Amino acid sequence: METARILIGGTWRASQSDKTFQAENPATGETLPSVFPLSTWPDCDAALTAASQAANTLRTLNGEQLGAFLEAYARNIESAADAIIQAAAEETALPVVPRLRDVELPRTTDQLRQASAAAREGSWRRVTLDLKRNIRSCFAPIGPVIVFGPNNFPFAFNGVSGGDFAAAIAAGNPVIAKAHPLHPNTSRLLAEEARKAAEATGMPAGTVQMIYHLNNEDGLRLVSDPRVGAIGFTGSRAAGMQLKRAAEDAGKPIYLEMSSINPVILLPGALAERGDELARELADSCLAGSGQFCTSPNLIVTLEGAPTERMIQAVAKIFNDRPMQPLLSASGREHLHQGVIALQQAGAELVCGGNAVEGSGYRHANTLLRTTGAQVIASPTDLQRETFGNSTLIVVAKDAEELEDVVHLMEGSLTGSIYSASSGGADDAIYSRIEPLLREKTGRLLNDKMPTGVAVSPAMNHGGPYPATSHPGFTSVGIPYAMTRFAVLHCYDGVRQERLPDILKDAISNQHTWRSIDGAWIQG
Amino acid sequence: METARILIGGTWRASQSDKTFQAENPATGETLPSVFPLSTWPDCDAALTAASQAANTLRTLNGEQLGAFLEAYARNIESAADAIIQAAAEETALPVVPRLRDVELPRTTDQLRQASAAAREGSWRRVTLDLKRNIRSCFAPIGPVIVFGPNNFPFAFNGVSGGDFAAAIAAGNPVIAKAHPLHPNTSRLLAEEARKAAEATGMPAGTVQMIYHLNNEDGLRLVSDPRVGAIGFTGSRAAGMQLKRAAEDAGKPIYLEMSSINPVILLPGALAERGDELARELADSCLAGSGQFCTSPNLIVTLEGAPTERMIQAVAKIFNDRPMQPLLSASGREHLHQGVIALQQAGAELVCGGNAVEGSGYRHANTLLRTTGAQVIASPTDLQRETFGNSTLIVVAKDAEELEDVVHLMEGSLTGSIYSASSGGADDAIYSRIEPLLREKTGRLLNDKMPTGVAVSPAMNHGGPYPATSHPGFTSVGIPYAMTRFAVLHCYDGVRQERLPDILKDAISNQHTWRSIDGAWIQG
Repeated sequence: METARILIGGTWRASQSDKTFQAENPATGETLPSVFPLSTWPDCDAALTAASQAANTLRTLNGEQLGAFLEAYARNIESAADAIIQAAAEETALPVVPRLRDVELPRTTDQLRQASAAAREGSWRRVTLDLKRNIRSCFAPIGPVIVFGPNNFPFAFNGVSGGDFAAAIAAGNPVIAKAHPLHPNTSRLLAEEARKAAEATGMPAGTVQMIYHLNNEDGLRLVSDPRVGAIGFTGSRAAGMQLKRAAEDAGKPIYLEMSSINPVILLPGALAERGDELARELADSCLAGSGQFCTSPNLIVTLEGAPTERMIQAVAKIFNDRPMQPLLSASGREHLHQGVIALQQAGAELVCGGNAVEGSGYRHANTLLRTTGAQVIASPTDLQRETFGNSTLIVVAKDAEELEDVVHLMEGSLTGSIYSASSGGADDAIYSRIEPLLREKTGRLLNDKMPTGVAVSPAMNHGGPYPATSHPGFTSVGIPYAMTRFAVLHCYDGVRQERLPDILKDAISNQHTWRSIDGAWIQG
Repeated sequence: METARILIGGTWRASQSDKTFQAENPATGETLPSVFPLSTWPDCDAALTAASQAANTLRTLNGEQLGAFLEAYARNIESAADAIIQAAAEETALPVVPRLRDVELPRTTDQLRQASAAAREGSWRRVTLDLKRNIRSCFAPIGPVIVFGPNNFPFAFNGVSGGDFAAAIAAGNPVIAKAHPLHPNTSRLLAEEARKAAEATGMPAGTVQMIYHLNNEDGLRLVSDPRVGAIGFTGSRAAGMQLKRAAEDAGKPIYLEMSSINPVILLPGALAERGDELARELADSCLAGSGQFCTSPNLIVTLEGAPTERMIQAVAKIFNDRPMQPLLSASGREHLHQGVIALQQAGAELVCGGNAVEGSGYRHANTLLRTTGAQVIASPTDLQRETFGNSTLIVVAKDAEELEDVVHLMEGSLTGSIYSASSGGADDAIYSRIEPLLREKTGRLLNDKMPTGVAVSPAMNHGGPYPATSHPGFTSVGIPYAMTRFAVLHCYDGVRQERLPDILKDAISNQHTWRSIDGAWIQG
């Protein structure tokens, strides 16, 4: 079979590497037929050269033109949805319905359309005019953006179609996507729709480029190349930390979403009031996507007592009854299994599950573990472990003080949830003690809600304190703010009116853009 | 003489280190009488502990309370101005009038008052409400901020009174100031006014802390301590790069302003039209503060021809005629002198000056060098050298292509200026070729203006591409945007109304705050 081509400078061309790889169907463990290149430096170099050229043109385009491309791409994805979904189902074993067709694909086109709308509207550029002094500033494109997509969302976080991609393009930058090697064919089909949309809307040739796979060394070289503007990464902490150092040593902004245990605190009033309901919500959230979500709850914290014991038993029953979904890969299953073993070695007890499941496909038993608050306080690092799969750990603290101590020891997470009694104020006192502690550990604080839904809302924060991400001031989901990660601040001081970018002139043609003029926000 | 005390946890206390240092009067070279401690780790540790405690309280204060402190501090500085100015004059040899009294001190109190106003007004927090989904987000304090002040602005960039200080406090964070050891007494007097203002306005004890000096190793340990929220640094590239790596390896946001050559391009039409005027402006800008400004023009680019030669001679005459001001230190003079020698070794020719001046005080001859475009293209790194003193290098390119090549090779700078013919469009063609190149190299692009005035305007960008700073998306001057460097993004998802911070509730008491509500900016 011919090796697939990579997308460089607007055309599909043969990789300059002769190394190849193939994906698998994780539901069966079978190797899929298509052969893909494992790129080496010459492919990266070609992509960087084309991206630099594209960046020079993209900088001159207005938001309307960038928005037209993103909108056309969203439409193309919808037209080609059947083929794309089929490829993703084969490569990820994620359910076609509802996950791929009804949830992730519409989420992806919605993100592209929100980014399109934000590019057209223009307010994201945070135009600030000081008319008296004739000093003007706005965000402008940062240059070629490298996007490393993760394994778990073949569309919505794919390097060539996901949130980082949409944000980078909408901010006026070319993207070099490093597809995830677990779903190369899905990425190929998406990239082809992007290529066609870019061509149809007159984007420069290197606007969207894609390679499938890269060894470690070339990845580090790629993120530190002088031609790079910024990097977006979603993936493991181990890979992320290496890229972080390489990029930062080269002075390149890198935005990483690396790992998160997403604590969920179930207060006693809530458990007494609606324990069975909480058990269902919790089990649903933990098993969503087989637990392979960046917001999957890996650490559940409760106070000891009968309602907690009942809830644990109820969750265990659901875990035992619920069919196991395939995990994304053999290595993912191994990582999960090693994590479950490590948690037990650190003092956690198995409530149910615990083992990989033999047979075709990469399955692991739905696994529930429990431990005490004292044990977490004794081994805080070992017991805060993201297993990235269908397992979770319930911590039973002996009292509010111990619960506070557990929260105090938590690492930074994307999310932190607190469930409390809906009426009567039974949990108010303990809530007000732990909320300030949890608030500082998380990007998004939830009440009475599991963390696994990440709405694409301007108010969303899919970010959080290190090591969940690399910068606590930014989000990777939420248009338009996510776009500012891929922007530089450009100031014009005393520059003649006719030489200013349109968006900074006294009179602006786009009547939708909000601008801060002498201290007030004014539209149009 | 008793060793000065450091400001820790709201009180002046003895350093736990027995190492000391003294400052000098750079106009005479005499050692000044006061003895200051060179702190070691125990001082840092005490400051971090107090700052962590203060951060917990500061987070609960509203903008009105933070603003009241900043306003009180500004007033206190004005009341104590005579003593502060006298101390600064002794330690820096900067002219009392106009520099210290009429320019830098009012600039400093203006910054504090702008930060106060921004904290009170609240719009900087970028509140975003998605009412339908009940998802709400805003910026919140990042935690203890370490501010390293530079040697060249004893008030306006001082760690305990300057722009980073004002921005960090206004964003709700405690500051640990690392004063610059060239002006410890000035810093002590400022810190005392800050302490009194903090006490009078009910700030927690560790809100403002200050140490005078620190060895390298403890500085690196300080910026990577888990209790730190973020770091602001203004200083040399060598020190900045070390701190950058230490902070980033620990996952701490660090904002550095490190070095900049601030290119000024004088186009032929402008030189033909008003060469003498440009020579005066250029000389004034280069010699302002003896060239010890981060925005001092270190690289002047022209096209060859008679107007350029006349301009060079005119600048040389001013340089020869203008009295030499003292530099800030012996090491600064040595750095400048070594820089002038290195530029000559890289092919630059001396037009005037070139040597340190014997006698009392640290003076160096006003120094003008010249070279060709070809030489810069041959040695781009060696000829882009920030001398940080009263010297500059004029590059004479043989034609527009060579000038473009020079711009193409420039490192990132804070500023880039282009002077062009004021009428007739003589320079329009070359302007449109070089502007896009220069734009990508600079944070602030100027027309017909020297870079050495940095207005404290919301539209200012005192930032730029690496290695001028560590992140091209932020500015260290310009309220309120500079404050966002010291903020984290906090999202509340499904959180009950009564548990939300006031600024995120449906109804807001502060009628001045602009908030983005379901996509529109609404005030109050």
